[in-house]
Order: sequence, then structure tokens, then C-alpha cells
Amino acid sequence: MQREKIILDVDPGHDDAVAMMMAGSHPSVELMAVTVVAGNQTLDKTVKNALNVASVLGLKDVPVAAGMSRPMVREQIIADDIHGVTGLDGPKFDEPTVQQDPRHGVDLIIETLMGSDGDITIVPTGPLTNVAMAIRKEPRIVEKIKRIVLMGGSYQLGNVTPSAEFNIYADPEAAHVVFSSGRPIVMMGLDLTRQVRCSSQVIERIGAIGNRVSKLFVELMEFFSKTQEEIFGWDAPPLHDPTTVAYVIDPSIFVTKPMRVDVELRGEHTYGRTCCDYFGVTKKEPNAQVAVTLDLDRFWDLLEACIRRYS
Amino acid sequence: MQREKIILDVDPGHDDAVAMMMAGSHPSVELMAVTVVAGNQTLDKTVKNALNVASVLGLKDVPVAAGMSRPMVREQIIADDIHGVTGLDGPKFDEPTVQQDPRHGVDLIIETLMGSDGDITIVPTGPLTNVAMAIRKEPRIVEKIKRIVLMGGSYQLGNVTPSAEFNIYADPEAAHVVFSSGRPIVMMGLDLTRQVRCSSQVIERIGAIGNRVSKLFVELMEFFSKTQEEIFGWDAPPLHDPTTVAYVIDPSIFVTKPMRVDVELRGEHTYGRTCCDYFGVTKKEPNAQVAVTLDLDRFWDLLEACIRRYS
Amino acid sequence: MQREKIILDVDPGHDDAVAMMMAGSHPSVELMAVTVVAGNQTLDKTVKNALNVASVLGLKDVPVAAGMSRPMVREQIIADDIHGVTGLDGPKFDEPTVQQDPRHGVDLIIETLMGSDGDITIVPTGPLTNVAMAIRKEPRIVEKIKRIVLMGGSYQLGNVTPSAEFNIYADPEAAHVVFSSGRPIVMMGLDLTRQVRCSSQVIERIGAIGNRVSKLFVELMEFFSKTQEEIFGWDAPPLHDPTTVAYVIDPSIFVTKPMRVDVELRGEHTYGRTCCDYFGVTKKEPNAQVAVTLDLDRFWDLLEACIRRYS
Amino acid sequence: MQREKIILDVDPGHDDAVAMMMAGSHPSVELMAVTVVAGNQTLDKTVKNALNVASVLGLKDVPVAAGMSRPMVREQIIADDIHGVTGLDGPKFDEPTVQQDPRHGVDLIIETLMGSDGDITIVPTGPLTNVAMAIRKEPRIVEKIKRIVLMGGSYQLGNVTPSAEFNIYADPEAAHVVFSSGRPIVMMGLDLTRQVRCSSQVIERIGAIGNRVSKLFVELMEFFSKTQEEIFGWDAPPLHDPTTVAYVIDPSIFVTKPMRVDVELRGEHTYGRTCCDYFGVTKKEPNAQVAVTLDLDRFWDLLEACIRRYS
Repeated sequence: MQREKIILDVDPGHDDAVAMMMAGSHPSVELMAVTVVAGNQTLDKTVKNALNVASVLGLKDVPVAAGMSRPMVREQIIADDIHGVTGLDGPKFDEPTVQQDPRHGVDLIIETLMGSDGDITIVPTGPLTNVAMAIRKEPRIVEKIKRIVLMGGSYQLGNVTPSAEFNIYADPEAAHVVFSSGRPIVMMGLDLTRQVRCSSQVIERIGAIGNRVSKLFVELMEFFSKTQEEIFGWDAPPLHDPTTVAYVIDPSIFVTKPMRVDVELRGEHTYGRTCCDYFGVTKKEPNAQVAVTLDLDRFWDLLEACIRRYS
Repeated sequence: MQREKIILDVDPGHDDAVAMMMAGSHPSVELMAVTVVAGNQTLDKTVKNALNVASVLGLKDVPVAAGMSRPMVREQIIADDIHGVTGLDGPKFDEPTVQQDPRHGVDLIIETLMGSDGDITIVPTGPLTNVAMAIRKEPRIVEKIKRIVLMGGSYQLGNVTPSAEFNIYADPEAAHVVFSSGRPIVMMGLDLTRQVRCSSQVIERIGAIGNRVSKLFVELMEFFSKTQEEIFGWDAPPLHDPTTVAYVIDPSIFVTKPMRVDVELRGEHTYGRTCCDYFGVTKKEPNAQVAVTLDLDRFWDLLEACIRRYS
Repeated sequence: MQREKIILDVDPGHDDAVAMMMAGSHPSVELMAVTVVAGNQTLDKTVKNALNVASVLGLKDVPVAAGMSRPMVREQIIADDIHGVTGLDGPKFDEPTVQQDPRHGVDLIIETLMGSDGDITIVPTGPLTNVAMAIRKEPRIVEKIKRIVLMGGSYQLGNVTPSAEFNIYADPEAAHVVFSSGRPIVMMGLDLTRQVRCSSQVIERIGAIGNRVSKLFVELMEFFSKTQEEIFGWDAPPLHDPTTVAYVIDPSIFVTKPMRVDVELRGEHTYGRTCCDYFGVTKKEPNAQVAVTLDLDRFWDLLEACIRRYS
Repeated sequence: MQREKIILDVDPGHDDAVAMMMAGSHPSVELMAVTVVAGNQTLDKTVKNALNVASVLGLKDVPVAAGMSRPMVREQIIADDIHGVTGLDGPKFDEPTVQQDPRHGVDLIIETLMGSDGDITIVPTGPLTNVAMAIRKEPRIVEKIKRIVLMGGSYQLGNVTPSAEFNIYADPEAAHVVFSSGRPIVMMGLDLTRQVRCSSQVIERIGAIGNRVSKLFVELMEFFSKTQEEIFGWDAPPLHDPTTVAYVIDPSIFVTKPMRVDVELRGEHTYGRTCCDYFGVTKKEPNAQVAVTLDLDRFWDLLEACIRRYS
């Protein structure tokens, strides 16, 4: 079987951790690097979280590197209301066994892509700062990117503002660089991920697997359910980030629609909105496949299968 | 029975005409004035259309006045792709029997309100230019406005741009004046009106009434169905504007939610978006009741009842 | 001699009062109307000030009408730091003998222009709200406007913000309407008016005339000198508004340069800036004659001559 | 004598070349690195030009590295109207003897600063992309920067647009990162540099020195005079960039004024304007010393002295 090479760019974050669980075990994914970005929390914390999760997953041969600690242009924001003071509140971790790669995350992306045959998919589940900085610092990587499958944006309601989703709002200028890069983009936005509600039944089902990763999943989701409920009133939290890895593994689970996506950089109330031309009214060429809906049963089956693979 | 006094501010427009049909016959509505604004077509055409429709409806004692021919600040746009070259393509009209009131629509709004006891609801179904100009020209009317029940905006997808709905986009600055007026606002946006699809069954049902107004309804909807299908791919067109009058007659048909609505005036891709704080993340005080869903059966029943009242 | 018909649109304001002095006495000016707008102070105060000044000047046959009390779109600002709590601090006035015209200032502008042969110059020395509202309410006046000679804007430094001048900043959307109207515009901006410093020598010279108007001038300038010195550190205050009337009387006093002027409506730090294409780099057609410099001696001579005409 | 350590960040460019001449010979300057950025021309050309000029100057021990080829966020612009198709039209160069450093310019800035004692001044004479990318990629350099003495911006008229100066307009987001960095900034904007007109007398005087560098100066200025005259109508071109190095050598030549400088990122007509609070009206803390005027004779003396030092 041809494995899909990916660079996973994360800001863990509870749902980022689940994305790592899926990428770390599925046989159709070859994890080339994990790059970490500030987002759900500050960089020092998201790096520590990434190393902790990578250690639980046993990702021994995958470089994990710290990237950008601040957005390209705007003031930094974090999502501690959702992810807590550590950025991954809930579980307790042992001292990590996976060590941080000394390279800068931006340079690791550049080196990995420049050394490739153009067969690597970038999978960002946080703000797009690392990816955009790599594209700007070394523009020759652009043609080396097979595609970008990202979690971010919304064509309906935002979450961090009425108009904008957190990952895009946290660095709209970086998002603009990525969406205007000319490479194939798959966007798993809130419109899709809000359909992926991790109910207590799901948590129970994954918990029943009984390995260390399923235990971590349960601990993460228990905290995540609580904050999502407080802020948005969900009875079950949307599991945003893992949809990206699921798409890489099996795109047939998802329905997508080609749309032109423009990131708003100037609005007073709409800064960071992904303006998705659902009806094609702008007549502009689409630059992204935007996820619209999914086969939820198959998604949960895939998640369970991925977590079962851990011993 | 206490009748609800309204000023109907329209830019007919196929669905505006249906709003006029409902306002013109229902016993719980007292139509104080019809003011006309440029929008779906240029002012000369929307005025002519308003007079034509008023004549068919027999609105003899209601002043119909021409208001603003251009938006307050921005360049003018019209919706001839949807409403045709006359703004009301489809039916043929006899010479109108209702004459245009000589007053400027803006002044008619001011005079009507200043002469009232603060019991008049303004019902705009076009761009908000007339209402905003009246508010600015004579600020003392603000406290005379009981409430504003308007068709416009969207908290999900736009129609004329990916982010914006036509009525708001056609004059965003006017919309800002209205939404920041401090008066109670009920917003019937696309999120609601896209649920009100006028299917061929509905057209048949109304057509079966068999009076002159039902005949006009059928002719209007036949044209409207065609253009909406061409542009948006709907099998049945959303009947936007009459939801406002229906709300005035029977608000219990609709579910609304209080939200803070800010109109984007500065965005590059989002100019004219109504940024609706569905989840309350801005913590700002709501300034509008935004319609979320409706009891569609009761809406069609009400529409039918209104049209049946014409002889 | 052919007299130049003007509508003077003011928000007095100390320098507006001096503009009224010049317009009220010079034989080459025929003052058709004085319309008042909120600006340097709220409308109630600027109207009172206009009536007070008109009474001192003896403007018996000129209608003085109250116009817009708020800007078209933005929140209201006033310049009480410069003009004091009354908007015309300094002199004490007797009960005014000139009565307010009952018409709305916007309608007075419209009526005056519609009744003319296209030979009226509009001379605004405050925010452009009245003029823009008239243009939008009755677009047919546009071709009736001979030209607009206004005080406002800057191609170098602003005053109320680093980028913007007060009259434009107080209603940028109105300014946009005026500058995009297509009519000939003469702009007396800060670049010009900062050259017109009313020194103590000038005040003495005008004071020496010894009539009631020269006395009012001196009282006004004594207060105005003080606040301008506090805020900008000038040793002598710039006498902005009278340059417009001086230009109408004798344009040969001034050097102007044709420029394209665009009003910034979207900037975060530049809202209300008049972007003047001094070097022609945009290649857009000029829409204004922008004053660059003047013969200061002749200006003071003209001012003195105007004030001497009062008995 | 204590020499001032500088990193010179350039996009040659005729006036950049003159800045290099001054930095390369004056005994009070220790040139640590030359980093090159796209700006006046594309990066391949500005790098080639930098190597050519460095070769003529004999800068053997100074690393010259290529930095950013595109702005951080916006679309790329160049100034070929001013600097010609090579970016340094006029002179013919021999094959350069100075070789390009293999490091990325951004990393060279980071390494040089991280290895320093906080005593290095950055002197950018092009768009601020390299400096901003370095600040964002490695935020720890910020406290290592002694100060930034840059050519860019304007508090009066722009050049590339009515509001904006080329270096800032070419990458406004980078300029925002620099101006909001919290480090001491000296801004040599157009207000200053337009006073530095390189007349034919100056060219003759420098030409009379008779060494290879004076010859290069004359060839550069002959071309530069021509294009500046065509576009701006100057009889003698402003020599923008060398003012930065002159300031480092002898700040007493210049009068500066502390101002708050905000870079406009959202304006429609003002994108890239440096909004300089000359009068302190915003009450914000100044973040830059903005050059206002200079002792022109001493500047030309210094330039001549620098060029005379070459054999």
C-alpha cells in the first residue's frame, strides 16, 4: 500500500492530540514530522503538550519541532478558555520520552519539503503561521507541497467571533498566504466539524478499548466536553482537528464542495473570516475543497480503529 | 381588535409585492404609508411597480411616495438578475389607478412618525436608505418608532456576495444607522427566508384561490422561480419579504433569538455582512431579534388567508 | 458687477464667524442662504451662534436654517477643545434679531438650488453633512451646483488625528459624497489655512477699525488664539474658514493645483483623510482644485476691507 | 574610537548603493553584515546589485546574504520605473569578486544578533521584510537590537501613492511588525529625504574625487536624476537611503522629533501610510524619532569624506 506522507502542524490542544493519535497509528499515513505552533496556548506549552502526546503514542522516529511563537502580524491570542491553562488540561503526563528536535519548525517544514519528491501533504490543525512563514521564507517549497488539508474557517458561523473561527482568526495574514498559495487545499471548517460531536456514548466506546491511548482520549474529552458546554452550550463537543487526518486516510467519508475562499484581513467585525463562495456568485476560480458533511458512523469507526492499533 | 400600524418601505421586487398583498388585506394591519426605495431596480421602476401593485390591491387611501434613488454613501447596485429589467418582470399591468404621493418618501416617514403616538412599526423589505435618511434628517423620530421589522442580512451565507445579503449590501451604511438606532429590531434574514421556499405546490394552491391578486401572485412567482433557479439552483425560490408582514400579523409563527448585529462597513470581502453574535461571544448587548426558524405550514396558511381576502 | 451667489454652510465656530463677516459685506457676494450644521459644537449651539453672528452683521434678508444635527453614518464628534462650551466662546451677544428659518437646512439647500439657474456656489466651512444629504435626497441638485468651495482636509498633516482634518473627519462619508459628486470643487485644506496665521498684529489692525464687527472679530480671536496655542503650540492661530469666502471674492489671491482627492473611509488610523494626489501618481482624473499657497498680504487687506464695510 | 556595529539591510537601488558606499568606508561604522531584500527590484536582481556594489567597494570580509524575495503578506511590487530593469541601471559592472553568503538573510540577521552583546544597529534602506521576519521567527532577537535606523515612510506626502512611501507600501505588514517591536526607531522619511536633493553641482563635486567609487556614484546619479525628474518633476533627485548611514555616523546633522508612528494596514487609499503623530494629538507614547530636517552642507561634506576614503 502507498502510504500518504504528511507533515502534521499542531497546537495541542485537545482535538489536536486526537489528530496525532490517528496520524500516529494508521498504516496509510507516514508521519514525516510534527511541527508545533502557538495557538490554543503559547508555544512553550503547545510544544510540551506535543512532546507529551508523542511520548504516549510512542512516536520515536518522528521529529517534533517548535515553530512560530507569535502570529505573523497581529497580536497573539490563545484559547485557554477552551483548552485550559496548560493547553491540554485534564490528563497528567509522565516525563516525555520524545525529545524536541533542535530545528525551527519553519525550517523543518522547508527542509522536509525540499528533500521530497512533491508527495507530502501538510496537515495543519492550528493557526497557519508555520506554514505561511515557510512559504514566504522559501517560496520554492510551494510547488513541493502536494496539498494542504487544514482545520480552520467557517462558511456559516464563527466561534471566536461571530464571523471568524479560532485558527484563522489567530493568524489571518498567515491564512491569507496559505489560501492564496495556489496549492490544492482541503478545508475542514466549523460547518463540518460541528457535525462531529463527541458524545458520551462515543467517549464510552473509545474508553472501552482499554489501552493507554484510549485512556488519554477519555481524559482529554472529559475536560473538553466541559469547556465547550460552558461556552457554546453544546451537549457534546465538536471534535474539530481529527477530521483532517481522517480525510487523509479516507476522503470518501466526507462530502466536499469546491469554493473560492478569501480571508478577510480588513474588516472591523469580520477580521479573519473565511469568505467561502458557496453559490459561486463571485465567479472566481475555487481555491479549496470545503467540507460540507460527512458519514459520521464511518468517522467514529475510523477513530476507533486508529486507537485500537496502539498496544 | 387593535390593529398594528405600519409603514411599509419597499423596492418591488417580486417578494415585496407579496408583502404588499399581505399588508394590504389583513385586518390586524393598518397600512399608514408605502414608501418606495431604489433596490431591486432603480427608483423610477420600483415606484412604478409599487403603484401597479397598489392599484391591483386597491390601496386607495394609502399614500405611496418615492424615497431615495441612491444609497447614502456607496455606489448603487440593483438586482436585475433576479427581478428582471422592470424589477417586476412577469405580469402585465393596466395603467395604475393609485397615484404617487407628491411628498419625498423620507419626509413622509418623518411626518407620519412625528404625527403618531409612537405606535408605528416600520417594515422595510428593501435597502434601508429611506429609514436611515429619515432617522438622520430628523433624529426625533427615533423614539417615535415602535420597532423595525425588516427583511435583510444573514448570519450564515450571503446571496449577493459570499458574506452579504442584497438589501444590506445595497446600502450598508444605512443598515448601520438602523441597527445602531437603539430601537427594537426584528431581522428576517436569509437564514429564515431560505426556509420559505415557494414550491409549485404552493403556487398551485394560491393560484386556486382564483381572484385577481392570486393571479398576480402566480405570474410573479413563475418569473421569480426561474431566475432564482438559474442563480442559486433552488428548485423553489425563497420568498423573503413577506415574512416581515407575517411576523407583524402573527409573531408566534416564528422562532427568534436575541443577538447583537453589527454591520461590516470596512471589510474587503465582507462589506455589508450582518455579523450576528449567535453564541454571544462578543458579550455585547443584543440589538435585534433574529429569526431562526418558522412554522412553515402556518405561514402558508396565513399567506393564503391574506390573498383570499381580496375580492 | 456680477455678484457671486453663494449658500454659506457653517458650524460657527470662531473662524466660521469671520467667514460670515466677509460674505455678509462684500459687494461681489450675494448671500442666498446660511445653512447650519453640527460640527464645532452640537447643532443647537451652532444655530444659536449663527443667529447671533448674523444679528451682529445685520443679515436681515438671508434665511438662516438649521440642518443636520448628526453625521450621516459615524458617531458625532465636536471641537469644544478649540471653540469652547458654546462653540463660540469669548464674546457676549445680545438677544439675536435674526430669526431662524423654519425649513430644514437640507431642504433649504435643495429649494435654493432647484430654484436657481445653476449659478450658485456652495461654500461649506463645517462638516459636509448638509451638502451631502441634499445631494443624496435630491440628486437633481447636482447639476445645479456651480461649484463647491470648501474648507476641509489636508494633503500633509491632519489636526484632529495625525491623518485627518476636523471637518472631514467629523463626517467622512458626507465628504466622500461631495468629492465624488462630479461638480467642481475648490479645497481650502490645512496646507493652505495653516499659512493664514492671525497674529496679534492682525488682531490689532482689525481692532483699529473700531466698528461693532471689528470688535466681535477681536473678541473671537482672543479666545481662539488661546486654545490653538494650547493644543498645537501656534503663536498665532490659523484662520481656516474665511479663506473660502476670500477665494470666492478674489481667487487670484490663491495658488491652487488640480488633484484627485479620495476620502479614506476604511482606514484604522486614517479614517477621514483626504488623500490628495499631489504628484499625479494614481493617474486618476483630478476632482478638485486644492489650495497650495496664497498672497497673505492681499488676504489681510481683503479681510480688513470686508470688515470696514460694516457701519 | 568606539565603532558603531550595523547590519545594513538593502534592496539596491541607486540610493541604497550610496548608503553602502558610506557604510563601507567610514571609520566609525563596523559593517557586520549586508542582507538583501526584494524591493526596488526582485531579489535575484537586488542581490546581484549588492554583490556588484560590494565588489566595487572591496567589502571582502562582510557577509552579503539574500533574504526575502516576497513581502510577508501582500502582493509584490517593485520600483523599476525609478531604478530600471536591473534595479541599478546606469553603470556597467565587472564580474563581482564578493561572493554571496549561503545563509538566508533572515537567519543571518538572527545569528548576528543572537551572537552579539545587544550593540548592533539595524539599518534598513528597503522594505522591512527581512527585519520583520527575523523578529517573528526568533522573538528573542528583539532585545538584542540596539536600535533601527530606517529609510521609509512620510508624515506629509507619499511617493508611490498619495499617502504612502515605497519602502513601507511594499510591505506594510512588515513595517507594522518593526514599528510595534518596542525597540528604538529612527525614521528617515520622505519629509527629510526630499530635502536631500542631489543636484548637478553635488554630482560634479563627488565626481571630482576621481576614484572608482566616485565614478560609480556619478554613473548612478545620472540615471537616477533622469527617472526622478520624469516621475516627480524634481530638478535634482532626493537621495533617500544614505541619510540612514549618515545618521549612524553623525546624528547631530539631523533634527528629529519623537512621534507615535502607526502603519495603516486597512485603508483603501492609505494602505502603507506611516501615520505620524506630529502634534501629539493621539496622546500615545512616541515609538520613533522622526527626522524633520538636516544640515545639508554637513551631509554633503560627510558623503564626500566617505567616498574620498576609497583608494
